[in-house]
Amino acid sequence: MAGNSFGQLFRVTTFGESHGLALGAVVDGCPPGLEISEADLQGDLDRRKPGTSRYTTPRREPDEVKILSGVFEGKTTGTSIGLLIENTDQRSKDYSDIKDVFRPGHADYTYHQKYGQRDYRGGGRSSARETAMRVAAGAIAKKYLKQMHGIELTGFLSQLGPIKAEAFDAAQIEQNPFFFPDAGKLEALDQYMRDLKKEGNSIGAKVQVIARNVPVGLGEPVFDRLDADIAHAMMGINAVKGVEIGDGFAVVEQKGSEHRDEMTPAGFASNHAGGILGGISSGQDIVVSLGLKPTSSITVPGKSINTEGEAIEMITKGRHDPCVGIRAVPIAEAMLALVLMDHLLRHRAQNQGVLTQTPQLR
Amino acid sequence: MAGNSFGQLFRVTTFGESHGLALGAVVDGCPPGLEISEADLQGDLDRRKPGTSRYTTPRREPDEVKILSGVFEGKTTGTSIGLLIENTDQRSKDYSDIKDVFRPGHADYTYHQKYGQRDYRGGGRSSARETAMRVAAGAIAKKYLKQMHGIELTGFLSQLGPIKAEAFDAAQIEQNPFFFPDAGKLEALDQYMRDLKKEGNSIGAKVQVIARNVPVGLGEPVFDRLDADIAHAMMGINAVKGVEIGDGFAVVEQKGSEHRDEMTPAGFASNHAGGILGGISSGQDIVVSLGLKPTSSITVPGKSINTEGEAIEMITKGRHDPCVGIRAVPIAEAMLALVLMDHLLRHRAQNQGVLTQTPQLR
Amino acid sequence: MAGNSFGQLFRVTTFGESHGLALGAVVDGCPPGLEISEADLQGDLDRRKPGTSRYTTPRREPDEVKILSGVFEGKTTGTSIGLLIENTDQRSKDYSDIKDVFRPGHADYTYHQKYGQRDYRGGGRSSARETAMRVAAGAIAKKYLKQMHGIELTGFLSQLGPIKAEAFDAAQIEQNPFFFPDAGKLEALDQYMRDLKKEGNSIGAKVQVIARNVPVGLGEPVFDRLDADIAHAMMGINAVKGVEIGDGFAVVEQKGSEHRDEMTPAGFASNHAGGILGGISSGQDIVVSLGLKPTSSITVPGKSINTEGEAIEMITKGRHDPCVGIRAVPIAEAMLALVLMDHLLRHRAQNQGVLTQTPQLR
Amino acid sequence: MAGNSFGQLFRVTTFGESHGLALGAVVDGCPPGLEISEADLQGDLDRRKPGTSRYTTPRREPDEVKILSGVFEGKTTGTSIGLLIENTDQRSKDYSDIKDVFRPGHADYTYHQKYGQRDYRGGGRSSARETAMRVAAGAIAKKYLKQMHGIELTGFLSQLGPIKAEAFDAAQIEQNPFFFPDAGKLEALDQYMRDLKKEGNSIGAKVQVIARNVPVGLGEPVFDRLDADIAHAMMGINAVKGVEIGDGFAVVEQKGSEHRDEMTPAGFASNHAGGILGGISSGQDIVVSLGLKPTSSITVPGKSINTEGEAIEMITKGRHDPCVGIRAVPIAEAMLALVLMDHLLRHRAQNQGVLTQTPQLR
Repeated sequence: MAGNSFGQLFRVTTFGESHGLALGAVVDGCPPGLEISEADLQGDLDRRKPGTSRYTTPRREPDEVKILSGVFEGKTTGTSIGLLIENTDQRSKDYSDIKDVFRPGHADYTYHQKYGQRDYRGGGRSSARETAMRVAAGAIAKKYLKQMHGIELTGFLSQLGPIKAEAFDAAQIEQNPFFFPDAGKLEALDQYMRDLKKEGNSIGAKVQVIARNVPVGLGEPVFDRLDADIAHAMMGINAVKGVEIGDGFAVVEQKGSEHRDEMTPAGFASNHAGGILGGISSGQDIVVSLGLKPTSSITVPGKSINTEGEAIEMITKGRHDPCVGIRAVPIAEAMLALVLMDHLLRHRAQNQGVLTQTPQLR
Repeated sequence: MAGNSFGQLFRVTTFGESHGLALGAVVDGCPPGLEISEADLQGDLDRRKPGTSRYTTPRREPDEVKILSGVFEGKTTGTSIGLLIENTDQRSKDYSDIKDVFRPGHADYTYHQKYGQRDYRGGGRSSARETAMRVAAGAIAKKYLKQMHGIELTGFLSQLGPIKAEAFDAAQIEQNPFFFPDAGKLEALDQYMRDLKKEGNSIGAKVQVIARNVPVGLGEPVFDRLDADIAHAMMGINAVKGVEIGDGFAVVEQKGSEHRDEMTPAGFASNHAGGILGGISSGQDIVVSLGLKPTSSITVPGKSINTEGEAIEMITKGRHDPCVGIRAVPIAEAMLALVLMDHLLRHRAQNQGVLTQTPQLR
Repeated sequence: MAGNSFGQLFRVTTFGESHGLALGAVVDGCPPGLEISEADLQGDLDRRKPGTSRYTTPRREPDEVKILSGVFEGKTTGTSIGLLIENTDQRSKDYSDIKDVFRPGHADYTYHQKYGQRDYRGGGRSSARETAMRVAAGAIAKKYLKQMHGIELTGFLSQLGPIKAEAFDAAQIEQNPFFFPDAGKLEALDQYMRDLKKEGNSIGAKVQVIARNVPVGLGEPVFDRLDADIAHAMMGINAVKGVEIGDGFAVVEQKGSEHRDEMTPAGFASNHAGGILGGISSGQDIVVSLGLKPTSSITVPGKSINTEGEAIEMITKGRHDPCVGIRAVPIAEAMLALVLMDHLLRHRAQNQGVLTQTPQLR
Repeated sequence: MAGNSFGQLFRVTTFGESHGLALGAVVDGCPPGLEISEADLQGDLDRRKPGTSRYTTPRREPDEVKILSGVFEGKTTGTSIGLLIENTDQRSKDYSDIKDVFRPGHADYTYHQKYGQRDYRGGGRSSARETAMRVAAGAIAKKYLKQMHGIELTGFLSQLGPIKAEAFDAAQIEQNPFFFPDAGKLEALDQYMRDLKKEGNSIGAKVQVIARNVPVGLGEPVFDRLDADIAHAMMGINAVKGVEIGDGFAVVEQKGSEHRDEMTPAGFASNHAGGILGGISSGQDIVVSLGLKPTSSITVPGKSINTEGEAIEMITKGRHDPCVGIRAVPIAEAMLALVLMDHLLRHRAQNQGVLTQTPQLR
């Protein structure tokens, strides 16, 4: 069933495969009057695009996005916005040898079983290449959130395999190819990645995204809570196996007296909750963490089966990221932006005026 | 905006507050011909209901559910099913003293800011009492999944504060009031809860749910992936701050050669993925973990503010669970059942026949 | 698939059969702060309820609605509103003789074929009794529209069989049991209905609803246009076979110079469009017409088949309306109110502020 | 709010303006395995495209559609299908003179008021040019319906202004530029259109669509009835002001004994209902009629206002259809195909197997 749309009021619908002609998206429900151009989208696309460092896939795609509709004289008109990125570096022949096999740890098997067939070229629709359109659409949301509400999103890599960020320097994040906030660990990261490459292996990672200046009141209980929708957005990113809000799984060992964030006339005294209470934003920073698995596209040989059910052994050739967590940073930001944008509109619909009329205690 | 519906094809819509007249739900989209009666729902409601052990809130509610429509001569008719549970033990007066204050760690503040007002009695709509209807609706899904596909769901408490289950004995789970699979730890749990009660404090917990016999093919990429929808369902349960599929956050430190589940003609050789690849069920057990925060309703005094923004200090009286994780076990099962049920129908809609026509390699 | 919800942001979900225990609804997405009580809903329920005149079914139902949630201290809280009407005058035995036959012109056959079974008591879910919940939910929308925007809805019967209203006296509508605006035709209507009753037959009707003071800008092209959603709402009322906006089918013979509504600085010079241009409200009166078929529940014998496919001849006993168009008047008003309410919230979501900032030329 | 999607399970999302770079659509939820190519879509696009006869707009657009994704090796894969048509004959300068005025009878005024601005070039998003993507998407649905269920759709013009079809010869419909089933009236139509052109005026029309071989059981009461969703689809076509199912408004003067379709072991004895009973398809032909207004783009001068609210008099230059009803024929077919496709999938989701297990009495 139709599962390629995200959001209800600010709704993004995407199409496109890894090795098809193009990727595209329709962004529906954008408020009119927002100044937007391709340049606003290209920045984040460039942060996500492959081939920018030796730590990511060598596939080279310019990922140049075109705005085909919904923008007139430099501003959104309120009608649906069509976006398109043409695929240029497809090299389909790389993939012909995996036509009849299921790569272990990949979606080959499940797509084949679900649909009775699959586009095997580079993973087809299951490829993370699809996320380029999420980033493009997210950039529109980001601009609106920033301009209208001063909301700012910061994503970074907090851990790569065994290497954790111990310092947090926001200024560092965009200065290195890892989106890593701890400059002291960059050399270790570089060495780790070199060793990994030699080994033909891949590694997991942890990504964090923080949203600042989110107004109080976003989230629609009891099912469409803000945290529930964030979890949906994040777990829907390729390779993500875990999502946390605020203290996340650390709460398991916390006591109530320790976890609850006390309030004072000056605001909250702590932020264990990660900015969400009862499924509704509290006005504090929203803090989200993701755990991303290591890609299964490695050159270490692995056991699998072919479409006849026979045993095979295979290595995954082609061009792949040894740590998909790195490029997931702009994707996670984009998805959080889409959730916040959708919930901002949802809140407005029901509570016009409430957002500003009530005292902002923070 | 309307956020009280869950699911698209098997859609549950709920209403009701902690201290209102009744809780209710509409279950829409249930296939016709399913034998169902109140008794089928009451079992799980009794597992969730308060007042069953000294480890949960002493509030006593029979939680007797009535089926008001959609079932005729013992079978579902395909039309919408109305469910109702009347509240009987409301004691609203317990709560009049919190009318003008925001309990720390609760949704009082965010509901007040979002809607400009709130039903302060026992948390109103933000109370976990609302989840009774999720359990009732989930029981319908559970019966269908079991009867038509042999799908079975098992939830349990895997950790309570510092105490982790080290053994797993499925038969134990329903034999103790903790839903704990490790009989050797029951005494420690009892002692921990007694100490906690003396202290007037609460504790976090970890809950796990496993689904067996799920067919290959459920999940609708790229946004409505099965794991994404499970994350949405689970993070939408009160007090949940983290969700994991399969190995969850452990993947951060795993290498690709270690994480990827190899396949053999006899099936998968491991299940790090937790039964989902590329957002689609693989036919393996689906494994989900949740981290639940300690309830903020404790008698340890805490700092907060009142609706005038003035500093106060308060303790939360009333009747509360010292570990909300315990009663979350049947809720988590219910939510997973609702997701699987919805996705089963979604898969059928697009792929009629594919489910059975393709070879089941597992 | 789940089809018992109406609206996206102001969403009504209903349940209940003609001869079940109760009818119910969940109204989700209502803005907080609206003063509402059962009395506000009862007025329209009484206008719709059976047994009020000799021209409608003699079934007697008090149709007393209870608000079970979502309203606190007399005001909506923004959470979901539960509504319930218990069935009291069910007389199920009346219907046992139709258990194995398909009444001609009824939904017996299609329900049976669709779901493989059916609740045959009084038509089950296909009975117009279900519309009581639409009227109850619509009354909440009506109150909000009136109070916040001064929007007023007026429904009336413009034609019953061959008898057309030629005069329009708004004050007359609620003064007679036909909701007929032309007092000069009341005697003819009475005589017509008496003759019809003797004959054991039924008759079609035309109903019109007008909405005044609707702001410019409601409607979400290109698919969720205001007129499209009105058509959906109206064609979804039992027995409706045609829907018109403004001049409706008369446009087929109109020329462009005749149809287009010219504008002047004082406003529109005519209203052929019925208040909607390009799928968006123009600020003029919204004018909607419905054609309702004669009920098929008549005592004139008719040919049909039974569930074995054998020929039978039958008359439809039980208690029925000879002209279902009469009681459709409050239903049509309710549905228009639901559409306008939903679109008001939808417009707000995307265009906060635009509604009031732009010049209102009308 | 997002209003550019149609359908729930077979969901079409469109973008594009009359004079933008391109029109596009995403078709989501198409079953896998359907053989489809651009050629399958081009046929209906050619039937709709402008410039094919002297009775339609002289704008010349090849309307060549490209399939960008979702089809692999000639078959649908079950993933989202991206469609694109580039605009080639835009001539934006034609429209610069209407930048600051509201053409009477057009959506200029309502778009401007709704969004606070508008793309004035050729009506922007409100132009019927947008419907090309509906036709392209509808062609996919048509092919599936035909191939899997033998469902066939036939649209035609049944009336143009005062000229009604009195004979019905299906073979004629595609033989003349009017889609008119009565060859005896073609000369009259030609003369009427010539006179109209001289006059610089336009005329209304009536279009009918018939669907054959629709299985019993499509439609999801109580709100998403098949007739309700058809009405939504049809009233959402530009210029439509009225929709009828079966006998439509003629039912107003019918008696129950006359209207109800009696059943015999051989099937229904008549089809006043137009193939839908209780909102569910009965297996008979589905019969839908639309009334389309005359376009307001005429060269007869008309009164209006500019964006400053000042009185003006204007004629609408540019290239327009004197009778938009003609080209609406393939659009109406496409919309009916989309509704049937969506409901086929919706029915399957809930009632897998029921469709074929129950006796087909027809």
